[in-house]
Amino acid sequence: MLKPNDLVLLYHSENAKYLITLPESGELQTHKGVIKLNEIFQKNYGDEISTHRGEKFYILKPTIADIEMKVKRTTTIIYPKDAGVMLLKTNLFPGAKVVEVGTGSGAFTIILANFVRPSGIVYSYEVREDFLKNAQENVKRAGLENNVIFYLRDVVKEGFLEEDNSIDSVYIDLPEPWEVIKEAHRILKGGHSLISLNPNVEQIQKTFRTLELIGFTRIKVYEILEREILVRYSGTRPKEFSITHTAYLLFANKVNKR
Amino acid sequence: MLKPNDLVLLYHSENAKYLITLPESGELQTHKGVIKLNEIFQKNYGDEISTHRGEKFYILKPTIADIEMKVKRTTTIIYPKDAGVMLLKTNLFPGAKVVEVGTGSGAFTIILANFVRPSGIVYSYEVREDFLKNAQENVKRAGLENNVIFYLRDVVKEGFLEEDNSIDSVYIDLPEPWEVIKEAHRILKGGHSLISLNPNVEQIQKTFRTLELIGFTRIKVYEILEREILVRYSGTRPKEFSITHTAYLLFANKVNKR
Amino acid sequence: MLKPNDLVLLYHSENAKYLITLPESGELQTHKGVIKLNEIFQKNYGDEISTHRGEKFYILKPTIADIEMKVKRTTTIIYPKDAGVMLLKTNLFPGAKVVEVGTGSGAFTIILANFVRPSGIVYSYEVREDFLKNAQENVKRAGLENNVIFYLRDVVKEGFLEEDNSIDSVYIDLPEPWEVIKEAHRILKGGHSLISLNPNVEQIQKTFRTLELIGFTRIKVYEILEREILVRYSGTRPKEFSITHTAYLLFANKVNKR
Amino acid sequence: MLKPNDLVLLYHSENAKYLITLPESGELQTHKGVIKLNEIFQKNYGDEISTHRGEKFYILKPTIADIEMKVKRTTTIIYPKDAGVMLLKTNLFPGAKVVEVGTGSGAFTIILANFVRPSGIVYSYEVREDFLKNAQENVKRAGLENNVIFYLRDVVKEGFLEEDNSIDSVYIDLPEPWEVIKEAHRILKGGHSLISLNPNVEQIQKTFRTLELIGFTRIKVYEILEREILVRYSGTRPKEFSITHTAYLLFANKVNKR
Repeated sequence: MLKPNDLVLLYHSENAKYLITLPESGELQTHKGVIKLNEIFQKNYGDEISTHRGEKFYILKPTIADIEMKVKRTTTIIYPKDAGVMLLKTNLFPGAKVVEVGTGSGAFTIILANFVRPSGIVYSYEVREDFLKNAQENVKRAGLENNVIFYLRDVVKEGFLEEDNSIDSVYIDLPEPWEVIKEAHRILKGGHSLISLNPNVEQIQKTFRTLELIGFTRIKVYEILEREILVRYSGTRPKEFSITHTAYLLFANKVNKR
Repeated sequence: MLKPNDLVLLYHSENAKYLITLPESGELQTHKGVIKLNEIFQKNYGDEISTHRGEKFYILKPTIADIEMKVKRTTTIIYPKDAGVMLLKTNLFPGAKVVEVGTGSGAFTIILANFVRPSGIVYSYEVREDFLKNAQENVKRAGLENNVIFYLRDVVKEGFLEEDNSIDSVYIDLPEPWEVIKEAHRILKGGHSLISLNPNVEQIQKTFRTLELIGFTRIKVYEILEREILVRYSGTRPKEFSITHTAYLLFANKVNKR
Repeated sequence: MLKPNDLVLLYHSENAKYLITLPESGELQTHKGVIKLNEIFQKNYGDEISTHRGEKFYILKPTIADIEMKVKRTTTIIYPKDAGVMLLKTNLFPGAKVVEVGTGSGAFTIILANFVRPSGIVYSYEVREDFLKNAQENVKRAGLENNVIFYLRDVVKEGFLEEDNSIDSVYIDLPEPWEVIKEAHRILKGGHSLISLNPNVEQIQKTFRTLELIGFTRIKVYEILEREILVRYSGTRPKEFSITHTAYLLFANKVNKR
Repeated sequence: MLKPNDLVLLYHSENAKYLITLPESGELQTHKGVIKLNEIFQKNYGDEISTHRGEKFYILKPTIADIEMKVKRTTTIIYPKDAGVMLLKTNLFPGAKVVEVGTGSGAFTIILANFVRPSGIVYSYEVREDFLKNAQENVKRAGLENNVIFYLRDVVKEGFLEEDNSIDSVYIDLPEPWEVIKEAHRILKGGHSLISLNPNVEQIQKTFRTLELIGFTRIKVYEILEREILVRYSGTRPKEFSITHTAYLLFANKVNKR
């Protein structure tokens, strides 16, 4: 049975879905009508529930992608299609100590925190106080606040707080990533991975050149594209209009200096 | 300092890279020449090392993508571009209990095991003994054998061994996935996620229809495409020839039966 | 100097461009203000002209893609990315006799007519009178009416009017193309090309099987994707949101029956 | 009945197809065996013919794409997917006078010549004599030599031979296209179109900036991608490995100078 503080995805359709931490009592307002909490508390994940207007919702267990896509956004977020590759092509694992610079809305922070659990830590840097505060709320709502340490700090001017050679992976989401490469090199463990993502080719080029100069190898750039395929009784085809670009992803590994 | 049993990626270039568990002593043979182990044991991750022919390798910390791409293959494997989205759009987290059917070479098993650590378990089913044996060796080489339980079993005929409503996510990589949907529905927790991947449209269509009949919702199909961007002094451009199709990914959530 | 009846593209920006056959006198209304015709008649193609509000337009020579994209639409049209390949991979040339079935808005009719000129003919079939009338007006506005013969006729029930083995290429844009394959085979010259386009996989599959049965070879299916790249001082990147699917294109060549 | 000098595509499969101008007599050698010309001369387009080994070929009418893809290559050629859009988004039509710079193998020259027929002319410039000679042979084999005038000339140093404001469209396929933009502007009719294609982002950026400076508007960049879909009894899916980048296409229209 569902109970207060459970995180649920109320799913009517792709255009009407709600990520909710269940309150103690009262009602949930949706665009499809009102759902009473005392009715929800007689249900389980996987059950149906109806609004007062008779619209049917499914009570689903949110995935980490659902949680990240439903953060309150103050910035563009990193999409699952990109985030997934970023997890696999860096040194990320339960227990890892990783650094994120450019917390933004905290969407990717949530993903990192989910996968360094239970003993790992995400050190997340943001220069804007309003962004950081919003990100902290998003991470708390996801129940992952014990695995993130937030810093309000301008890394470009002041550098990272971590010790030399102590970090498993560094994730950079800044408009001028080349400004923090030297510091990222300092805190990364030897041979470990860095990733930077940006929408523009010029940003990738400048970061690429800087990585070569500072001391990185295996510098690789990818773009990930996602197509949704609609399977319907009227026919199967790709979606006709969609997102066609988010960011280029640049991966590299630290080479120790001699 | 590196030591025996450390897992390293010796990286010369994209066409010459070696994933190696360091033996106690002796030499490593590469296409670029021989590397002596007593020299490696004086190095750290991130250092350079030369072969007897003077070819330079970097000693990198392998990512989980490196490990999965370097398994000994008896079957087609799931690529990182696909595996990444599969992690994020299912109920996967440290501690999760998940089922994989179609172990194949164990490449995706390695990824699942990495992210359910330390307390989670991957129950992995394979019908061919030779595939299973190879997969077990691959998982062991990755150091993840404590988080995987392998079953040599024909799920189509004999079903899963798990209890009703006990599993967080089910991952299906079979040519006829529709044959196991009913059993997958039985073992999945309510509202939790299933994924199936296949190369052909017809397989996706038939699985889609079966999921609707058996009791799933939010059935969605995606294709993930990866483009490598080459950043060179001679110019920046996408790679000219590449993989253009691996599989369609089908996601769904279990609806409880009434 | 421009003169009445000249076809011009008044171009302010991608969101404000007008394809106009210049009238004898008066004014042109645009969303950016009014342009006087007596001012236009003192200009040439390539000149700038201002509205009464001081907004600047360029007077461009329309391409055939401009003309086809600006038809009055009663139906979905075939986009230039698809139309271009359809010209090159079929037997199209000045003087060709070709058949189009499914005139729709006449957009592709315009392209065909442009390239069979001066001595070729497009025989274009449409079952709906309102569509045909609109298409005729679009083709006339493009100045290509001498190279098109329109038929109001249900080809599925009544067949084509052309003689056996007399047509260079057949272009099919129908929801059920398999219904006209036998007739298309009849009128096509031996070894010559047919193309059919549809949005759904099932339509392509059924047409493919029918072509095999009726007597075609080299049956090939393609999808053409177009990405716009934005080159700006703020950076170079693909457009972020765009059309991601129009149609699959199926090509085949007639095999003579024995 | 086929006769000497007919151009045929002998089609066994995608990996065994031959574009041949039929000689007077003798035999045709293929990888699938020998075909006798006296047997071909009893056949028509669309008929089957067998080699001495019993392998079956279809005698197809070549499309212009077949002809261009089968030129003898001394350089990279422009693919049909790109060439098609280049025809439609420029001022090309029967009777047009157009300029091509960078003849290369003459593949795109053939396409231009096909569509300016019967009264139009392609003025094609090439700086390397060996390339030009090969291109002339390719164009002659396609039967289009009456619609092309070739120049062995370094346009970067010596400019075009055409008069001011006399050309309908200019097609540039050079590694340093910005070097000829000023001259292209001179010979183009006002408001008419120019296109330049290059594989690298930097080339497109530099050409873009130069076009802005010299006097062009509506400068747009596209990339065209082609996916082949395999329709088989074993299943329908995109091809697994394929060409993923050829060139970026840059379009612009001339603005008259004041």
